[in-house]
Amino acid sequence: MAKLSSVEARAAIRSGRHRRHTAGLAPGCLQANLAILPEAYALDFLRFCQRNPKPCPVVGITDTGDPIFRTLGAEVDVRTDVPRYRVFRDGVLDGEVDDLLGLWRDDLVAVALGCSFTFEHALAAAGIPMRHIDEDITVPMFRTDIACVPAGPFAGTMVVSMRPIPEDRVDEVKAICARYPLAHGGPVHVGDPAAIGIADIAAPDFGDSLPPRAGEVPVFWACGVTPQNVIVNARPDLCITHAPGHMLITDVDEGAETPITK
Amino acid sequence: MAKLSSVEARAAIRSGRHRRHTAGLAPGCLQANLAILPEAYALDFLRFCQRNPKPCPVVGITDTGDPIFRTLGAEVDVRTDVPRYRVFRDGVLDGEVDDLLGLWRDDLVAVALGCSFTFEHALAAAGIPMRHIDEDITVPMFRTDIACVPAGPFAGTMVVSMRPIPEDRVDEVKAICARYPLAHGGPVHVGDPAAIGIADIAAPDFGDSLPPRAGEVPVFWACGVTPQNVIVNARPDLCITHAPGHMLITDVDEGAETPITK
Repeated sequence: MAKLSSVEARAAIRSGRHRRHTAGLAPGCLQANLAILPEAYALDFLRFCQRNPKPCPVVGITDTGDPIFRTLGAEVDVRTDVPRYRVFRDGVLDGEVDDLLGLWRDDLVAVALGCSFTFEHALAAAGIPMRHIDEDITVPMFRTDIACVPAGPFAGTMVVSMRPIPEDRVDEVKAICARYPLAHGGPVHVGDPAAIGIADIAAPDFGDSLPPRAGEVPVFWACGVTPQNVIVNARPDLCITHAPGHMLITDVDEGAETPITK
Repeated sequence: MAKLSSVEARAAIRSGRHRRHTAGLAPGCLQANLAILPEAYALDFLRFCQRNPKPCPVVGITDTGDPIFRTLGAEVDVRTDVPRYRVFRDGVLDGEVDDLLGLWRDDLVAVALGCSFTFEHALAAAGIPMRHIDEDITVPMFRTDIACVPAGPFAGTMVVSMRPIPEDRVDEVKAICARYPLAHGGPVHVGDPAAIGIADIAAPDFGDSLPPRAGEVPVFWACGVTPQNVIVNARPDLCITHAPGHMLITDVDEGAETPITK
């Protein structure tokens, strides 16, 4: 799978041959978090993203009712090209599905948000250990008490991902990540989990447990799962997201200056 | 004027004491292009901005009917805090005004777009000559034949700004500007004006003439005046922009990672 191009990887997902997380697929290509909402919520949701650019860096928006992300590559179909989706009704998780062919509606707008895989690749290239990759687990994610800037019905707290980083490399990590504003940018917090409302660093709300070892510091990044925490309050009749870790793979070079393919 | 803070500069503009261009005001603070549209056009306009991030890097969006940019500083009032506005009716320039107190409506949405002043300051700090600043004129801006990615009724060609750059410093200029994605990023073209549809480098469509001298190359950046070129096609009943060079001054540090004040 890791040797497939982005077009081939999407074809494997579309045909049901790949239903697992997408870490490591289509190396060098931008992957994205997903949030699909009725058009009536789209303007406020885009305001929410603009006001919270670290958890919600927008890299694509479809036309209303059009399931194709026309700026993200060749026939990127939001109905079929994500390995697993979460369906929320009235803000409450209603289940997970493998495709949206029976759920797509003419009033839906899909928004793609940048993803941590981009900066993880840059950190790995700089020789920073990424323990969740080495141990082949999903990065731990936590709800925090960091308030997002509200927009219309969208209000709530930020979800963060955590990676244990060797103490002497934290400054380097900050500098590298700040270069990727469309992939959550620099960390939002370093150190004491309690300072951002996390009670137990070994018990994440999403993903797998990965407590820091001696000599490591917990480093926290704004996470694209944040919208899943915020729609609980907005209560749209329908909202569809990716399942954590199961991202949309695009044809955009993850080092590109803009997320727009020609 | 150049010694005023951003809050003081906005106060001077609001009271009518400053009606000129805003170059050099409130050094270190982010300045912004402005586009105000009826809410019915806002979602498509935000899609247009996302798909054309170089001319239209969004740094702020107001709530519908709210004239205050609440994420850009202390009481940033879009009705009074720009020195000169352009009013377009049905896509056609109808005139310029000093404030919007008589024009503001409950259905309007204001969008702030990053501005070239940010990267100009970074270039000047690196010792790159900025001739239009030295000569105290407005940077030359040109309509081009570079097609924007359309969104709904918003479609058309890009407007660019041009700065003559010493030939041996072009690579340095590219690298510096790429660090400022919210200020148009790296140049969209270097060299031959005809290649992007510019017939006469000495005759700009907006701003002042500044032809390159021997040893200088014309370097072109996507420009925040682009929306003024695109609304002609979208024909909203009302659209209000800043007058070229007369920007909205915010309290955001122009080196900040995100354009959101606390």
